[in-house]
Amino acid sequence: MSLTGEMLIGASALRGTGQSFSGFDAASGAELAPHYGSATEADVARACTLAEEAFAPYRAASPDIRAKFLELAASKIDALGDALTDRACAETGLPRGRIEGERGRTVGQLRLFAQEVREGSWQDVRLDPALPDRKPLARPDLRMRMIPLGPVGVFGASNFPLAFSVAGGDTASALAAGCPVVVKAHPAHPGTSEMVGRAMQAAVKEAGLPEGVFSLLFGVGDALGTALVADPHIKAVGFTGSRAGGLALGKIAAARHEPIPVYAEMSSINPVLLLPGALAASGAALGKAFVGSLTMGAGQFCTNPGLLLAIPSDGLNAFVTAAGEAMGDAAAGVMLHKGILAAYEKGVAKLGDTAGVKSLGAGHKAEGKAGAAFFGTDAATFEKTPHLADEVFGAAGLLVADADLMALARLIQGLEGQLTITVHMTDDDEALFTALLPVLETKAGRILINGWPTGVEVCHAMVHGGPFPATSDARTTSVGTLAIRRFLRPVCYQNVAEPLLPDALQDANPQGLWRRIDGVMTAPV
Amino acid sequence: MSLTGEMLIGASALRGTGQSFSGFDAASGAELAPHYGSATEADVARACTLAEEAFAPYRAASPDIRAKFLELAASKIDALGDALTDRACAETGLPRGRIEGERGRTVGQLRLFAQEVREGSWQDVRLDPALPDRKPLARPDLRMRMIPLGPVGVFGASNFPLAFSVAGGDTASALAAGCPVVVKAHPAHPGTSEMVGRAMQAAVKEAGLPEGVFSLLFGVGDALGTALVADPHIKAVGFTGSRAGGLALGKIAAARHEPIPVYAEMSSINPVLLLPGALAASGAALGKAFVGSLTMGAGQFCTNPGLLLAIPSDGLNAFVTAAGEAMGDAAAGVMLHKGILAAYEKGVAKLGDTAGVKSLGAGHKAEGKAGAAFFGTDAATFEKTPHLADEVFGAAGLLVADADLMALARLIQGLEGQLTITVHMTDDDEALFTALLPVLETKAGRILINGWPTGVEVCHAMVHGGPFPATSDARTTSVGTLAIRRFLRPVCYQNVAEPLLPDALQDANPQGLWRRIDGVMTAPV
Repeated sequence: MSLTGEMLIGASALRGTGQSFSGFDAASGAELAPHYGSATEADVARACTLAEEAFAPYRAASPDIRAKFLELAASKIDALGDALTDRACAETGLPRGRIEGERGRTVGQLRLFAQEVREGSWQDVRLDPALPDRKPLARPDLRMRMIPLGPVGVFGASNFPLAFSVAGGDTASALAAGCPVVVKAHPAHPGTSEMVGRAMQAAVKEAGLPEGVFSLLFGVGDALGTALVADPHIKAVGFTGSRAGGLALGKIAAARHEPIPVYAEMSSINPVLLLPGALAASGAALGKAFVGSLTMGAGQFCTNPGLLLAIPSDGLNAFVTAAGEAMGDAAAGVMLHKGILAAYEKGVAKLGDTAGVKSLGAGHKAEGKAGAAFFGTDAATFEKTPHLADEVFGAAGLLVADADLMALARLIQGLEGQLTITVHMTDDDEALFTALLPVLETKAGRILINGWPTGVEVCHAMVHGGPFPATSDARTTSVGTLAIRRFLRPVCYQNVAEPLLPDALQDANPQGLWRRIDGVMTAPV
Repeated sequence: MSLTGEMLIGASALRGTGQSFSGFDAASGAELAPHYGSATEADVARACTLAEEAFAPYRAASPDIRAKFLELAASKIDALGDALTDRACAETGLPRGRIEGERGRTVGQLRLFAQEVREGSWQDVRLDPALPDRKPLARPDLRMRMIPLGPVGVFGASNFPLAFSVAGGDTASALAAGCPVVVKAHPAHPGTSEMVGRAMQAAVKEAGLPEGVFSLLFGVGDALGTALVADPHIKAVGFTGSRAGGLALGKIAAARHEPIPVYAEMSSINPVLLLPGALAASGAALGKAFVGSLTMGAGQFCTNPGLLLAIPSDGLNAFVTAAGEAMGDAAAGVMLHKGILAAYEKGVAKLGDTAGVKSLGAGHKAEGKAGAAFFGTDAATFEKTPHLADEVFGAAGLLVADADLMALARLIQGLEGQLTITVHMTDDDEALFTALLPVLETKAGRILINGWPTGVEVCHAMVHGGPFPATSDARTTSVGTLAIRRFLRPVCYQNVAEPLLPDALQDANPQGLWRRIDGVMTAPV
């Protein structure tokens, strides 16, 4: 596929007439052809109008048609072959294995959502049959199902150029729900975005769906995103990025005549609790493993472990020593783009300059690359220095070691919402874990034991979400099949005659759904 | 029970030191003892702090303990006997039968939520077992459940002094979810609120739950509500009332450091489509039945049928004649309070003064009471006069009759979100209904056939919700068991050892839950 630099509005490909920009090779800084033109407000309006026009026919399409479309999209992304990998590696600086793994995850996700569409429990069907003889009042026949919200605006993320971008989790779950999607490509990987966008566009065409089911817009600056969130046809927004960005989109959405939900996955420092038993049993091994998780992909994961909490002990000393040594071996990392590198370096410098914070290890540095950084402090310093709880996006970690268990407990209680909290423990730590768990549950979307938070499984039980500011909406997840629920709303049908009911609600249950009948979960027959 | 005029903060009863106010007899305007003192900001903070302190133990209580608490609350409200009915009738002007029915609904709702808590599907449990041999990466053990959000602020509604008030649907569903509740009583029925509040307070005590599970605050003016929504311990808000009120609470919630969801049920004109077959078959009977629905409870229902749409025909003429006659027989109605009566009279006067709108019938009028009003216009007038689509809370209806089917279709397409849309039809209208249904689904939370929207069944399949401005959040309902989902969020547990897992997630399934295991719905064994 040769890149043209055009945006994709429904079935069309056309050059944006706004500000021109290019992709860059993240490692060398070299500009990559072609040029992309930013979308105008008229382009946004056109894409959203097409999405609105596609909404009724797309949601009316059978689950099997929607599922086949998702599977077709997956095949077409697979078929992009090495060209996609090459371009994504160049634009992001991420290593080949990582991009290949991410592609596998992206197409696997599309296929999982295809299965989920067919399985159908997302429709949440409930039937309360009529009770004509009930006193004092008869009960009418009442049936409920979930239907899609409407067109969804999706913002590609810089740190996952495939899995959280043009055809990533937000797009897959919105399309699975029956919502057309208008994507704003992240300007740091326009070529990758165009390739995937063209695969999606081709899948829409081949599936015989209305063109407005998918559009892809390019743009630098805030104007495109603002116009997309403000467009009256857009009924929900998916975003993965910075806290400032997510909050800004939330404000635009709240200020609309009709406010809409914004699902923004924003900021998390992913605390790791190193309990005494685990440190005693394997402090050194944990220290080494920590650095592996911290520095993977130059630390550019939403779930990067940025904060460690522990009580001083010999095991902790072994942890710190091993981590410090591993840091010394850590290569300098190419970051996604210059802006992220600059923000990282500023954040690390601020940590280093903070009174009461000392360096516990540093990775190799190189011009234009990021050096990993590991710092230490105590609970009192952490408590009185609010910026120590801010995310520094990249391979920066902070250990808070304190002999005062109550001070650490207060620190945990005072944490903002997180995507993940990790606990390293052995059987000896069970009483402590049991005491902590109720607090951890209120702080994070995922609690994981004896692992590292980087690496998010796409499955049914995953939660990639959490209380504010990890996300703007703790009631949801952006990874896993539960993500479909973000784009649905319930509708009740009262006394609608059987032949006029939607398939999912008919007595004969032609879709073979699990349904709650009079409140009782009932198997399809 | 003798009323004291005190607010209930946890286990305490104390007099508010803010502005004093009283209930009034809605029919006579006479002041009703005792005086109530408005809560101060310190009172709000105290109630919310107690709620936060109660949150951990309350959510840790077993489903059976929570269910028994809800059942106990229902029994105690039942036990208030005639004293509650008398006071609620006096404070609201609603007839005895209506209040008795509403009490039955309120206690039935508490008992239904008790069942729902025990049934447990609200926990949405998903288990994805470990796949240690999967290539290239093993899958960890992942388990998901829903947990409660935290303390919830509930605003009592004026028009349902029991079912949408102190122990109404918002309170019942939040408590069922495991969230402590802080209620702001509606100042139009303080005595009713105190009685029900004391029943709730006694149920908390008798159930052995922490006192902060329930508090009840009184106040006039905006300060109390503002402080409640802004309190950092409050994690969600339930509200039923005016559009202006709901939007104001939404703005306060969005401006918090941590924005929180506001579930506001606000405004709906509940369109009724009179299809040609139905009018031909029973125009006169429908006209009479319409007036019955319009004038019930002086029209003070969120689902009051405020807009009728039809094509001119002999059947429509019969409808209009019969409706006009029935209007002539309609008694003047006592409204909930002076402010609502004044707003209704203003709204009716504005309708009557609108060019292109003519009266089709009027109910009896009386000093201090509301006369029902029925108006007619055409599609072009409706389209060019935006205020005709605004809710006039009370027994005011508007018929838009137009021979231009496309103009009516455009009108429907242009409607704002609604709680309900009603269709009157016969077999002859099926093709028209089938064409309309996809549009109606995008406009309303409930679609009902050959009935009237007043009367909302509390069951599993009910949706009392709908797109903005019917509610602030179309993804939910405020009536029926699905309402519990508003107060929940998912948490994922990764590689947590079996004995440390919450009950709902253990392999042995001690709660006997339906669970999705590897994506497959699985019965409890």
